[in-house]
Amino acid sequence: MLYKFKDKIRLEQLKENEVKLKPWQLKVKTVIHGTDTIPGRVFDVFLLLLILTSIVVIMLESVSYYKEKYLQIFLVIEFVITGLFTVEYLLRILSLRKPWKYILSFYGLVDLLSILPTYLSLIFTGTKPLTVIRALRFLRVFRILEMTNYTKGANTLIIALYNSRQKIIIFILSILTFVIILGAVMYSIEPYSAGFTSIPRSIYWAIITITTVGYGDIAPVTPLGQAIASFIMLVGYAIIAVPTGIVTAEVMQKKHDKIRKHACSNCLKTGHTMDAVHCKYCGEKL
Amino acid sequence: MLYKFKDKIRLEQLKENEVKLKPWQLKVKTVIHGTDTIPGRVFDVFLLLLILTSIVVIMLESVSYYKEKYLQIFLVIEFVITGLFTVEYLLRILSLRKPWKYILSFYGLVDLLSILPTYLSLIFTGTKPLTVIRALRFLRVFRILEMTNYTKGANTLIIALYNSRQKIIIFILSILTFVIILGAVMYSIEPYSAGFTSIPRSIYWAIITITTVGYGDIAPVTPLGQAIASFIMLVGYAIIAVPTGIVTAEVMQKKHDKIRKHACSNCLKTGHTMDAVHCKYCGEKL
Amino acid sequence: MLYKFKDKIRLEQLKENEVKLKPWQLKVKTVIHGTDTIPGRVFDVFLLLLILTSIVVIMLESVSYYKEKYLQIFLVIEFVITGLFTVEYLLRILSLRKPWKYILSFYGLVDLLSILPTYLSLIFTGTKPLTVIRALRFLRVFRILEMTNYTKGANTLIIALYNSRQKIIIFILSILTFVIILGAVMYSIEPYSAGFTSIPRSIYWAIITITTVGYGDIAPVTPLGQAIASFIMLVGYAIIAVPTGIVTAEVMQKKHDKIRKHACSNCLKTGHTMDAVHCKYCGEKL
Amino acid sequence: MLYKFKDKIRLEQLKENEVKLKPWQLKVKTVIHGTDTIPGRVFDVFLLLLILTSIVVIMLESVSYYKEKYLQIFLVIEFVITGLFTVEYLLRILSLRKPWKYILSFYGLVDLLSILPTYLSLIFTGTKPLTVIRALRFLRVFRILEMTNYTKGANTLIIALYNSRQKIIIFILSILTFVIILGAVMYSIEPYSAGFTSIPRSIYWAIITITTVGYGDIAPVTPLGQAIASFIMLVGYAIIAVPTGIVTAEVMQKKHDKIRKHACSNCLKTGHTMDAVHCKYCGEKL
Repeated sequence: MLYKFKDKIRLEQLKENEVKLKPWQLKVKTVIHGTDTIPGRVFDVFLLLLILTSIVVIMLESVSYYKEKYLQIFLVIEFVITGLFTVEYLLRILSLRKPWKYILSFYGLVDLLSILPTYLSLIFTGTKPLTVIRALRFLRVFRILEMTNYTKGANTLIIALYNSRQKIIIFILSILTFVIILGAVMYSIEPYSAGFTSIPRSIYWAIITITTVGYGDIAPVTPLGQAIASFIMLVGYAIIAVPTGIVTAEVMQKKHDKIRKHACSNCLKTGHTMDAVHCKYCGEKL
Repeated sequence: MLYKFKDKIRLEQLKENEVKLKPWQLKVKTVIHGTDTIPGRVFDVFLLLLILTSIVVIMLESVSYYKEKYLQIFLVIEFVITGLFTVEYLLRILSLRKPWKYILSFYGLVDLLSILPTYLSLIFTGTKPLTVIRALRFLRVFRILEMTNYTKGANTLIIALYNSRQKIIIFILSILTFVIILGAVMYSIEPYSAGFTSIPRSIYWAIITITTVGYGDIAPVTPLGQAIASFIMLVGYAIIAVPTGIVTAEVMQKKHDKIRKHACSNCLKTGHTMDAVHCKYCGEKL
Repeated sequence: MLYKFKDKIRLEQLKENEVKLKPWQLKVKTVIHGTDTIPGRVFDVFLLLLILTSIVVIMLESVSYYKEKYLQIFLVIEFVITGLFTVEYLLRILSLRKPWKYILSFYGLVDLLSILPTYLSLIFTGTKPLTVIRALRFLRVFRILEMTNYTKGANTLIIALYNSRQKIIIFILSILTFVIILGAVMYSIEPYSAGFTSIPRSIYWAIITITTVGYGDIAPVTPLGQAIASFIMLVGYAIIAVPTGIVTAEVMQKKHDKIRKHACSNCLKTGHTMDAVHCKYCGEKL
Repeated sequence: MLYKFKDKIRLEQLKENEVKLKPWQLKVKTVIHGTDTIPGRVFDVFLLLLILTSIVVIMLESVSYYKEKYLQIFLVIEFVITGLFTVEYLLRILSLRKPWKYILSFYGLVDLLSILPTYLSLIFTGTKPLTVIRALRFLRVFRILEMTNYTKGANTLIIALYNSRQKIIIFILSILTFVIILGAVMYSIEPYSAGFTSIPRSIYWAIITITTVGYGDIAPVTPLGQAIASFIMLVGYAIIAVPTGIVTAEVMQKKHDKIRKHACSNCLKTGHTMDAVHCKYCGEKL
């Protein structure tokens, strides 16, 4: 009874909110934020294509061969896309009742950073850092995905990673301690000519080795150094099992523990599994 | 009752199908498609050897040393094998009642692509792409395996990968976003001389690093670049746990699903395997 | 009854121990060893900053560019920090009733090794090995962590690794046997010019390859050598699954062990968690 | 009753066997084959040291620096150890009633191969392949381990690998198909100068890349080649999850399924779990 009453109030509030928006705002909101209507879907696909085109243009612009040949075309595409992004950004703000919440949100800032660099490049020219900010545009892809039901899988991953954060932090800290000490050891063993010119560089080499990347730009030349390197490699190869074991155990745990959301009506404790019939704390029927 | 009746009809249809094939067609079908008879097994082994020989010849032909010396022999072997493959292909078509279904199937196309390039090479000479198509021949190995019970294991794998496709797509997309942004960052930090000549090349480097391949053809030289590289390596080393966790959880799920869901009606215990007839705790019939 | 009596005695002993310390000793002990009081927390954060600063200085000192420029500043910082570490070390000894137990403990030795090299460098100059010992300072980070509840996660890891030590030793021994034999094989196949100048160097290469590090400073050049190398790589790629499988199984075991072993006396069902008071299926008191 | 009778007969047979050996043979057997007596343990430790020394000598002998300096010493050690190994080999044969079974066993052949090359080197000089055979000596380490209870862990591993052999074979075959086709593709895309001089070499490169080894001796230079390489790397990085998932699932299965060894006395079927009270097939009490 109580729930029904509450639901009614909430429904009226929602209606009230929507009513305060003008008809054109409602229409824009449905298209930009929704995915249920056909125009909303078309808008999402169009936006996805725009983002991909813009990323491809940023990439090709950095290749000197293409830059010399097609710079004019790139600039035109860049300004057209930025214009469309600007219109979209303004429409998003105008169609919301609380625009500041959006503007200061993660995606709001990404949207702003997607258009700002192009306008800034009119004032300051040839600044490479702006390219980096423009590349952040690709983060917008995730907003489109969020509207689909594709990010359910991501949630499981994020929860699994979050639950194992303590172990992962300890693991990374242990590796850091290990590479710092090994970096100092290798620095005192290996000659300058082999590339071990400073402790930070030796630590850089130790990380390259323990993560099994192995560029080969720095490599030990003394027998003792090579023996220690072999040892690091075997350690790195063996301990990769540790984070894997942690995350796997967490992902599996998630699958097993489909925990009921509502609490026991008698003792109000939660944490009952799906197959439970009685509360495990007080014996009350669930 | 109904089932028996249906079975009877299906059996008659099957007989009818087989009857419509002429005796020699039936014989050819048994040999080529079947693995139960001795000639069928011999045919499979012979086909396997032909495929392997043909692949070895394609490989050796690409080595200039062998090409100069044994080109004549290679060409003869190639034409003999292609001839045999052609005969097999025609026999397969002739021995089936619905040849188009086979011709347009995956293996039908692979079989066609196995013989076409050799004939085309008589008209167009020295074309490298034809070599690629000829190498597709190796895919035929899987058809032979499919007739044995070896692909049961593959099914488990494919189902496990299929069930975790959502998570894997999200995972790959996250990595792509990460390397695109990192590529742009490294492009603006590192000098041209280190190999970071464009954003696509920097992304290529980021992928080499995050997957722990580490060629070393492109490697950061600035301290800041090396610090970021170290960070990418540690991330790449840690997140390999994520796909592993997903797939492992899926493979194990498959193993668990072989347990009956309902409990014994007498002692109410669960955990009985699919082949169990009696409850393993109290002996009650399940 | 007996336990209560024992507890009483132990409590009195504890009181006695504390009483024997002078007031200033107790105060120092609370600040240095405890984390519950505000001065204790402040001390920990301050110590953490000192350790990090000292490690950064050691690193920068090894870079010739910074060494030439800021050597004076580095030496001053080094001596100030060593002075503070010395004061802390002495206070730790003075505030304990059994100082020898601390001095000879792992962390006691690490603390001593953190201050000794700086004093030794006044007598012997320019000795690189002292740098290595000074880098051991970073191990002190773990003591600070130990006071927080962050190391709980580490315990699970260490127990999981400890329980699977037999399998891991066998695994590493098998890999060692494999790389020794392969090293000898590659040494007899590959020419000196490719870098396979001795069996130890060939073993070094085999370890680089099987752990998928792949520097590229030594690489096979003969077709046979490359074929064997390909084989090692595939083996190395496949057997990484083995330690991962072992550790994952152990980590999961830990999670499972939290389940009660005995069933409900009423419905005979198992799978109750350790904190359960009533059977979740029938409500019976466990 | 029947079992007791059988046991009695077996015991008598054993006694008879031992009796037929002369006293000195029995003593030698206890020392060489047993690990329970103190002389047996001492012998094992001594043998282990001999094997390690001999392996170290073989390694150092291949380093030209040490060879020039200490060749005389190496030869002396080599001959002394070979002499001791020969004595051990002969004692093993003499102390057994069925020496041929030992001589033709795996360890019997390893023991023979441990001593033969040194004698052969007196006749044929400077033959590198003999070094390889001598390195096989290290395999003897496993026999010593086998006497301890350290190989229990190995059994779990071997069974887990054996049970997942079908999936692993399919997995390796899929990778082989993949690298063969990719090798052909890269050979037709990349120029000779980048190192892709033949299809086998391109396949070698594809294996280096997909296993994330990444030497860098061969690396793509064209944009298309680098794009394909990036794709292979991501695939290689993702599919490492597959063998890991398989093996982990098997290792865990082993832990869960402690299967009873004896069959049901009524229906003679096996495969009952440890907690089973009744046969799951016929309901008979176990």
